[in-house]
Amino acid sequence: MKKAAVIIIGNEILLGRVTDTNSGFIARTLDPYGISVDTIVTVGDDGAAIADAVRRLTATYPLVLTTGGLGPTKDDITKKVLCEIYGGTLRMDDAVLANVERVFAAKGLRMNDLTRQQALVPTSCTVIQNTLGTAPIMEFHGTDGHILVSLPGVPFETQGMLVNGGVAERIARELTPDVHTAHRTLLTYGITESGLAERLDNFENEMPATLRLAYLPDSPIIKLRLDAVGADSVSVNALVDEWFDRLRSQLGDLVFAIGEVSVEERLEQILRERGLTVGTAESCTGGNIAHRLTSVAGSSEVYNGSIVSYTNELKHNILGVSNENLEEYGAVSEAVVRQMAEGAARVLGTDCAIATSGIAGPGGGTPAKPVGTVWMAVTTPSGTVAECHRIPGNRARVIERATVTALLMLLKQL
Amino acid sequence: MKKAAVIIIGNEILLGRVTDTNSGFIARTLDPYGISVDTIVTVGDDGAAIADAVRRLTATYPLVLTTGGLGPTKDDITKKVLCEIYGGTLRMDDAVLANVERVFAAKGLRMNDLTRQQALVPTSCTVIQNTLGTAPIMEFHGTDGHILVSLPGVPFETQGMLVNGGVAERIARELTPDVHTAHRTLLTYGITESGLAERLDNFENEMPATLRLAYLPDSPIIKLRLDAVGADSVSVNALVDEWFDRLRSQLGDLVFAIGEVSVEERLEQILRERGLTVGTAESCTGGNIAHRLTSVAGSSEVYNGSIVSYTNELKHNILGVSNENLEEYGAVSEAVVRQMAEGAARVLGTDCAIATSGIAGPGGGTPAKPVGTVWMAVTTPSGTVAECHRIPGNRARVIERATVTALLMLLKQL
Repeated sequence: MKKAAVIIIGNEILLGRVTDTNSGFIARTLDPYGISVDTIVTVGDDGAAIADAVRRLTATYPLVLTTGGLGPTKDDITKKVLCEIYGGTLRMDDAVLANVERVFAAKGLRMNDLTRQQALVPTSCTVIQNTLGTAPIMEFHGTDGHILVSLPGVPFETQGMLVNGGVAERIARELTPDVHTAHRTLLTYGITESGLAERLDNFENEMPATLRLAYLPDSPIIKLRLDAVGADSVSVNALVDEWFDRLRSQLGDLVFAIGEVSVEERLEQILRERGLTVGTAESCTGGNIAHRLTSVAGSSEVYNGSIVSYTNELKHNILGVSNENLEEYGAVSEAVVRQMAEGAARVLGTDCAIATSGIAGPGGGTPAKPVGTVWMAVTTPSGTVAECHRIPGNRARVIERATVTALLMLLKQL
Repeated sequence: MKKAAVIIIGNEILLGRVTDTNSGFIARTLDPYGISVDTIVTVGDDGAAIADAVRRLTATYPLVLTTGGLGPTKDDITKKVLCEIYGGTLRMDDAVLANVERVFAAKGLRMNDLTRQQALVPTSCTVIQNTLGTAPIMEFHGTDGHILVSLPGVPFETQGMLVNGGVAERIARELTPDVHTAHRTLLTYGITESGLAERLDNFENEMPATLRLAYLPDSPIIKLRLDAVGADSVSVNALVDEWFDRLRSQLGDLVFAIGEVSVEERLEQILRERGLTVGTAESCTGGNIAHRLTSVAGSSEVYNGSIVSYTNELKHNILGVSNENLEEYGAVSEAVVRQMAEGAARVLGTDCAIATSGIAGPGGGTPAKPVGTVWMAVTTPSGTVAECHRIPGNRARVIERATVTALLMLLKQL
């Protein structure tokens, strides 16, 4: 792997007003080309800080990418700094100017002196036309052989130009003409990170040095990613496939999905394959399971609707939960959550249903049913099952964890 | 302002598999204490890279915070690096061990050797107990007077411990004992950032130099925060109160909430004050409005429930929307969304109701009703109103913006 550094430029990032997503996108995009991002440095719109980071990182890394600091406002100074470091002067680029004019015309905006200055570029760089915005992309070659590419800060422009605009491929062609990589991922549920590490101890010791296994926990799910590097694409893929199969068989039932999918996406795939529909009856999760299911594009084909029943009256009136069960066992009970799931499937006209009833807190807990107690039930054509979970943490965490656990519960029943 | 540096440790961030939100949270949290984050450096789980960043940044900055690199898997090595830099040896901390055991017991999990090692800490640090997780927080003091605080990587733990756990306040007390700060915030809706800036031009020019006004847009809401710095707590608070009152009267009706509250929290306060209840009937927002309302602790006193009706059948059968309206105007129409709101109030037995019907995309758009078209209606004791919004962006953004806009719409009617 060739190593790269990324410099994120912008006061708005340092102040925490905007979250940087460019660096992660760059890392994911360059990785398949055998280029790994080794460090990310964020600095403000400050000439000295930018110059310092550029000089320090280009001395170590064969590739440095910068994003941001190229807009039309007065604190955008990256261009001047790069011109000082790489030499030459700023010149007006006719093609860039024509592009800026095109973008402004398309938006019905008028140009002013500030916007015209976007077409100024150092004579020491090669310009890559930014077809998605006004700030030009600039490539510099250092005398020691390093490459520096300056990208705009707007994620839509940077990310679009890297992939569809061909900038990542261009960089890879220049930097690593003969490295090939491959990776496979799977998702596990029902085991802790250290439990997994113990179970995979032998596997990791036997693994060849050209493979790497990463644990990516997102509680209660742990994602495992297997990466391989080699000199040709065929052997790298064969190697990663062989070891990925061993990994899957080692983990057995703990694996609930292969590849980069969310629980709700996997659920939507399976429901669609089997021609089944789903609905929810939610108490403590308050509509969050419905929200997760409907966040998947195309979910309307498998999802009908939901009843959020925060009160006992609605559990009885709409879902048909019996008043006897509500009185005898309370709303947070196996009997009630089973009736909620079955009632939801009936009222919503679905094949499957997920129901939850619990105490999200901070109030409402009792010694027998403390905050975090969540009963959940799942109805499928093969029947109804119910489970009780004790989820630690604050209200938001109880809701989030109960949501994921309930979705996983339906997945297991299908 | 004192300057600080943040070191984010973790291969998962460098690889772009997880987006770092800790650095932004740290910046926003420390800013009111007169501490500004000047640079953020991200490195992998690599001893040499961590050591290099710690040595370089502690030589320049009086405060350095690290997050990550403290979990139980073998690639977590921050603790060893810090022990080498600050001296001493690793010792087993009984209080930390008891905390790890408590967390594991609460989850019903068993300890193993790896998890027990989380309680090892360098003798050269002061331990701050992490009550939200297992990895201890460690504070080191350099011989040159700098402070380094090592925080866990899990955002829930780091962010919770910084604010509610008092870590930010502790850092500020140690770093800037003679600086007193105070701040007030308010939320506006219905005006752009540049519109606000124009309106507050005089206000900002007249403001004393010890005050600072920050615009924190979170579309469609803009938060304004007024910060004051001074030598004693009483005068700082008096100054900020005086200017905050002027700010409020300058903005009038544009202000919909004072302080650090979310739209749903403000809504819950007002409904509770007036003794009113609310429910929702959601189509395109898919339960997200219900989720936001129920994320507020104590919301069960004002919230009864919701109907998520993704199909026309459910809109008709449960909410009583007429088949004539569905056929003549379509599901995404004023007539239907009004009937949904009124039907929800009736079926759920609430005083108020919010309803949405729109096209979240990516499919389903037409020339007359493109993706992003969302009809929303609000019913209160004074009647029903409806609005149509065109929301740009992808599915997730349409759902999120429609949710916030609908909540603000009810707020305006109360």
